[in-house]
Amino acid sequence: MYLLENISKNIYSLDKNSIQQAKDRLDTLIKPKGSLGKIEDICMQLAGIYGTAKFDTSKKAIIAFAGDHGVYEEGVAPDPQDITQLQFPNFTKGLCGVGALSKFVGADVIAVDVGVNCDHKLDGVRDYKIRKGTSNMAKGAAMTREEAIKCLEIGIEMAEECIEKGYKVIGIGEMGICNTTPSSAIISVIDGCDPAIVTGIGAGLKKERLKHKADTIRNAIELNKPNPDDGIDILSKVGGFEIGSMAGVILGCSANKTPVVLDGFISYAAALLAYKINPKSREYMIASHLSAEAGTQKALEMLDLSPVLNMDMRLGEGSGAALAFNIIEASNYAYQNMATFDEVEWV
Amino acid sequence: MYLLENISKNIYSLDKNSIQQAKDRLDTLIKPKGSLGKIEDICMQLAGIYGTAKFDTSKKAIIAFAGDHGVYEEGVAPDPQDITQLQFPNFTKGLCGVGALSKFVGADVIAVDVGVNCDHKLDGVRDYKIRKGTSNMAKGAAMTREEAIKCLEIGIEMAEECIEKGYKVIGIGEMGICNTTPSSAIISVIDGCDPAIVTGIGAGLKKERLKHKADTIRNAIELNKPNPDDGIDILSKVGGFEIGSMAGVILGCSANKTPVVLDGFISYAAALLAYKINPKSREYMIASHLSAEAGTQKALEMLDLSPVLNMDMRLGEGSGAALAFNIIEASNYAYQNMATFDEVEWV
Repeated sequence: MYLLENISKNIYSLDKNSIQQAKDRLDTLIKPKGSLGKIEDICMQLAGIYGTAKFDTSKKAIIAFAGDHGVYEEGVAPDPQDITQLQFPNFTKGLCGVGALSKFVGADVIAVDVGVNCDHKLDGVRDYKIRKGTSNMAKGAAMTREEAIKCLEIGIEMAEECIEKGYKVIGIGEMGICNTTPSSAIISVIDGCDPAIVTGIGAGLKKERLKHKADTIRNAIELNKPNPDDGIDILSKVGGFEIGSMAGVILGCSANKTPVVLDGFISYAAALLAYKINPKSREYMIASHLSAEAGTQKALEMLDLSPVLNMDMRLGEGSGAALAFNIIEASNYAYQNMATFDEVEWV
Repeated sequence: MYLLENISKNIYSLDKNSIQQAKDRLDTLIKPKGSLGKIEDICMQLAGIYGTAKFDTSKKAIIAFAGDHGVYEEGVAPDPQDITQLQFPNFTKGLCGVGALSKFVGADVIAVDVGVNCDHKLDGVRDYKIRKGTSNMAKGAAMTREEAIKCLEIGIEMAEECIEKGYKVIGIGEMGICNTTPSSAIISVIDGCDPAIVTGIGAGLKKERLKHKADTIRNAIELNKPNPDDGIDILSKVGGFEIGSMAGVILGCSANKTPVVLDGFISYAAALLAYKINPKSREYMIASHLSAEAGTQKALEMLDLSPVLNMDMRLGEGSGAALAFNIIEASNYAYQNMATFDEVEWV
């Protein structure tokens, strides 16, 4: 708890001077003011985060967490649960979506087991397993408050380790069969809306099972009564280990002045938890892609974020965050390398 | 006219077999079917365009055209007209938006003068000037039908030259002070809607001047009466040389089985002209970014295209097309390099 409290105390608003310096440079580049849209927004945000108007965004990593979910036994996902342990080792090998896209953009992937339902160590994966999956939230809290703090702190530690190693841009990713279920639960609790509004098909649930999935979430919320103003309580009652760790990365990046790139739907839930724990963490988030999952708009509205990509992706893993690294680097390149009106022969 | 007719006769629908082969491979990759969204759509489209399920997308070019506009004298743009001739030479030097972004993604920029209002040859720019700007469409047709065909054919020739040189992906760009005015006119004519609905601030027109801009467009349409079913007639009555040449590139790419990446608002107008001349050309288009200009949604709906990027950009030049090259290459990389279920140790 000390680490979490200490980190949360050390999250500050972005540096206004550096934002202004970036804006001043952007306004002198040979283009109509503001015409590069989010390219300009990203550069100003990065300046505010790093506290300098000139920065390097080339060293990038995706930190991905895997965990299983007790609520799986309620029949809320079409895939076998052991896909989590089978797929996760592919993350660091360039073989799956996030692996291939990270390789293309020159990003490293760090994979961390915080709760996979298996006894053996997964190949290429860091072992910080808290427990072999959460408890079934349809029957009680998904985890204890201590476990919630633990997974947040694992995320913080992973973020700090990466930042110490020199990573300048960090994305979050995940693997966990049925983890759209706790994600929809978290979004529903924080928004106060009925779960049916923010519950989608995840990796491919049949449409006729959607009502059952939403009912399961609604029952779990009624049973566990998470406090919508307490991020740690929401995480412990209806969350997941990997979701909590992703929220921890966001807090860790925020306290260490490092931008954190969200992925899709699961990461929106993690972002909302981080936001509940410390609202200033929002200023450090960059939204990568508009997830195809139902509930996306509601989550992004609460976060007041607008993704740069609209790819109809619903894979998760961190694949969208990896793809957006390219846009962030391109933005920084244009910002640094375009000519100013003074530099060109202009009448 | 012979070239244009010949090219238009040789545009065929995409190769269904190759699309199916690409889909078959995508469905064996280690992810839920369809979960990579537009990454998968792009790969299937490229397979259908190239006529093979394995293809290279690394050699890329932006072909950008510049032209001035007689309607400028109606006061529809805030900038001096000579910005066209001042800015265009920066396209090939990596100094402006499209230049810097193309450099970042490893694309070449080919800049072609088809109608800039100046007497001297522009540095680094190919000279195919038709005339020093169109006539004022508020007083008569912007160009003759012969000139319309000529600018289309210049576009076709540029596309074919690039394809012969080995470029596999071609984007279109432009420069021309006040060219949102003819673009809005083209979109309004083809949609049949009132110009006010598809008229925006362009590079930064003051909001109180918007009504005047829309009125100017409405009057030009009423005066010239372009035939909404005749792309060449629309181009000659209310178009622009650079817009016609961009449409020519689209037709040239389509006839030569090469994908063509649209940029923003001006390119939507060019795409609609190409679509009117041959509807099959639409199958060869990839939409890069959702322009911030009013009228964007209407144009994209008519084209039935959904851009991959949502950047609030309104610069033009080809800057959005350049940025999207990255996404196309990343898509192809993931498609080729992700593992199949057979290749990984899967239970």
